[in-house]
Amino acid sequence: MAFAAVDVIRAKRDKRELTAEQITQIIAGYTAGTVAEEQMSALLMAILLNGMSADEISQWTSAMIASGDRMDLKGLPKPTVDKHSTGGVGDKISLPLAPLVAACGAAVPQLSGRGLGHTGGTLDKMESIPGWRATLSPEEMLAQLRDIGVVICAASDDLAPADRKLYALRDVTGTVESIPMIAASIMSKKIAEGTASLVLDVKVGSGAFMKDATSAAHLARTMVRLGTDAGVKTSALLTDMSEPLGLAVGNAIEVAEAVDVLAGGGPADVVELTIALAREMVDLAGLSVDPADVLASGAAMDSWRAMVAAQGGDPDAVLPRPLEVEIVTAPATGVISKMDALAVGMAAWRLGAGRARKEDTVQAAAGVLCLAKPGDEITEGAPLFELHTDTADRIPAAAAELAAAVEVVPAGRPVPRRAIVMNTIRG
Amino acid sequence: MAFAAVDVIRAKRDKRELTAEQITQIIAGYTAGTVAEEQMSALLMAILLNGMSADEISQWTSAMIASGDRMDLKGLPKPTVDKHSTGGVGDKISLPLAPLVAACGAAVPQLSGRGLGHTGGTLDKMESIPGWRATLSPEEMLAQLRDIGVVICAASDDLAPADRKLYALRDVTGTVESIPMIAASIMSKKIAEGTASLVLDVKVGSGAFMKDATSAAHLARTMVRLGTDAGVKTSALLTDMSEPLGLAVGNAIEVAEAVDVLAGGGPADVVELTIALAREMVDLAGLSVDPADVLASGAAMDSWRAMVAAQGGDPDAVLPRPLEVEIVTAPATGVISKMDALAVGMAAWRLGAGRARKEDTVQAAAGVLCLAKPGDEITEGAPLFELHTDTADRIPAAAAELAAAVEVVPAGRPVPRRAIVMNTIRG
Repeated sequence: MAFAAVDVIRAKRDKRELTAEQITQIIAGYTAGTVAEEQMSALLMAILLNGMSADEISQWTSAMIASGDRMDLKGLPKPTVDKHSTGGVGDKISLPLAPLVAACGAAVPQLSGRGLGHTGGTLDKMESIPGWRATLSPEEMLAQLRDIGVVICAASDDLAPADRKLYALRDVTGTVESIPMIAASIMSKKIAEGTASLVLDVKVGSGAFMKDATSAAHLARTMVRLGTDAGVKTSALLTDMSEPLGLAVGNAIEVAEAVDVLAGGGPADVVELTIALAREMVDLAGLSVDPADVLASGAAMDSWRAMVAAQGGDPDAVLPRPLEVEIVTAPATGVISKMDALAVGMAAWRLGAGRARKEDTVQAAAGVLCLAKPGDEITEGAPLFELHTDTADRIPAAAAELAAAVEVVPAGRPVPRRAIVMNTIRG
Repeated sequence: MAFAAVDVIRAKRDKRELTAEQITQIIAGYTAGTVAEEQMSALLMAILLNGMSADEISQWTSAMIASGDRMDLKGLPKPTVDKHSTGGVGDKISLPLAPLVAACGAAVPQLSGRGLGHTGGTLDKMESIPGWRATLSPEEMLAQLRDIGVVICAASDDLAPADRKLYALRDVTGTVESIPMIAASIMSKKIAEGTASLVLDVKVGSGAFMKDATSAAHLARTMVRLGTDAGVKTSALLTDMSEPLGLAVGNAIEVAEAVDVLAGGGPADVVELTIALAREMVDLAGLSVDPADVLASGAAMDSWRAMVAAQGGDPDAVLPRPLEVEIVTAPATGVISKMDALAVGMAAWRLGAGRARKEDTVQAAAGVLCLAKPGDEITEGAPLFELHTDTADRIPAAAAELAAAVEVVPAGRPVPRRAIVMNTIRG
């Protein structure tokens, strides 16, 4: 019988398991345009509401990989290992992490995307470095991995093209929040990228896509299984995203904070998470150095500078500064007990650091600098946030986001601190 | 805040009740083209899986009515009453019923559609009468209602245009089988048509859309409430569709059977259902004649002939005959205990009586004539079905549909007969 998309939709609607052939045909048909957008969106809603079995998710991921090219990194002289984060507020970890792991002896093929929504993309942050370019040919990418051991660049349009088309559809049809689809989307791109090992940073909390630890763990286990089944050594760290990571939330200001970490400084939480992820990556790559020692040696900074320069950037250039800076002051005297990640992320987004539609541009200098964090003492009226933007009329909306973001308790009252790394799931 | 379709989709996805404003805006936007097909199909799947409250269905129906024109039949000198069937195999009841109720003293504005799938449409059947035309202007329709008291014609494109667009979308996205959407689709057209009273014939069984009495009763109650709330006196009869209605399943052969009924003959089940529906309609219209007497008087036949002639048809014309006739014989000797309505309907559809896509044409002469029905004695090898078609190569597939349609038990064993009218639901 001829393939009919409506039969696949009906099967999932009626809670039947889709066959490998049905999944292969629906993804191939959608990529080719013979399955209509309105048919795929009905199927996506049925998947979101009725779920998918592990076998279905695995088949869906394979079909998305098969929709495009698959890179081959096996010819490299070093073990390959990559990291993917599900996205958080102030999450600039890729910037110090990728050169650090390269300095440990691995090759890190960090193919990244641009941000949509309040969590900015790694490429958006890197592009605030004057001259740096995100687009490399496959040959340039391979040569840089061979020579320097690290590349952060845009994923080719030929990697999992079905995923790109699906993501745009999910965005306008209320079908983003599906764990099977999120897992298949991330893993199809990472498996097609050709890395031998992968560490996932699955964020949990108000500033993350997953608001609770149960759903985050479910997503993490789903992705670890997909990677492992596809022959990629895969681990996942569940990490806290209830407050911003570090002090800087934006683009250029996050690059500056990443450089601080590479120079041996930087906020404690950013350093802690960078080291934790690096240890997991180094371990999966079969190397036996301690990333903390490599960071202290300055070798990670050398890798960073080489990587930035190889992609046309000037590692010594002055980063863009905002035309407007506004201060938001502390609402009370005492100790900060809470700083809501989502509110800070939304403020940075409203200042111009993120985009509402994928065709929007971002402001390199926009963002929020936190002048204190939970656990710190503050005085009512003292500066608490710096708002950076090139567009003064964006400031009131950003300040409004921050109005209820902070809770202050009387000094002396204990403020419990959550661990950044909450759990590790290994394949 | 500006209206965003994705927020409406998310609300229904998350099982929240949609507001009247959300429903009004999504239907208006979809009709105008600002809500995309892929957004509406995702919403339809969420509605199918998560349901709708009575208030939501009522609002959805009102919004569909508001998408187009609403006819005004209040100026007619007679009470208006219409019937709608959810569709069954051999369901030609509108053909004798509409002129019968007109002959009882009501005005019957029977606005109909063409069939999609195995249940043919009333217009398809009527169009097998040479010269008869389905398309009338609103003025022609009103004049005919005034003069003859009955019209069977195509609904104007201006009645509930949102419903027509939605129906085409539901068909390709696996979202037809939603009781809220079925109820809103039927009732928006019937309320917009302007009838004062309405009797619904909700079919139950293998040949019907609703396979079980529970879901059929749910649909019937939903529609009766929608009609009543909109000021239309509404009743619903739940009627059996486990076997074909009458002996003829097709187009011209169903017209011939309808004329037999008007002439005082015809199969007992067709007569029984015609009278039952007519009594309910006459009752809602506030008239006090017995349709059985009116049928026996020949007045219904007079109305039929006047209606056919008014729409260009020749009531005495010879109806189209098929180029090919094939006999399917009885598989055993005994008493027929079962004849599956769906199998007979599919056979007629395969012979050319129905359409697979809405742009297909139907064969006027195609169909299946049942030579015996459940309860009848038959002899192995004796003719059981006549297959009619203009296309000989359609016969094998049709015969295959019928192979397992009939069960025969030894003569003398009792064959229980279900009542045609199973239940009546009144507003």
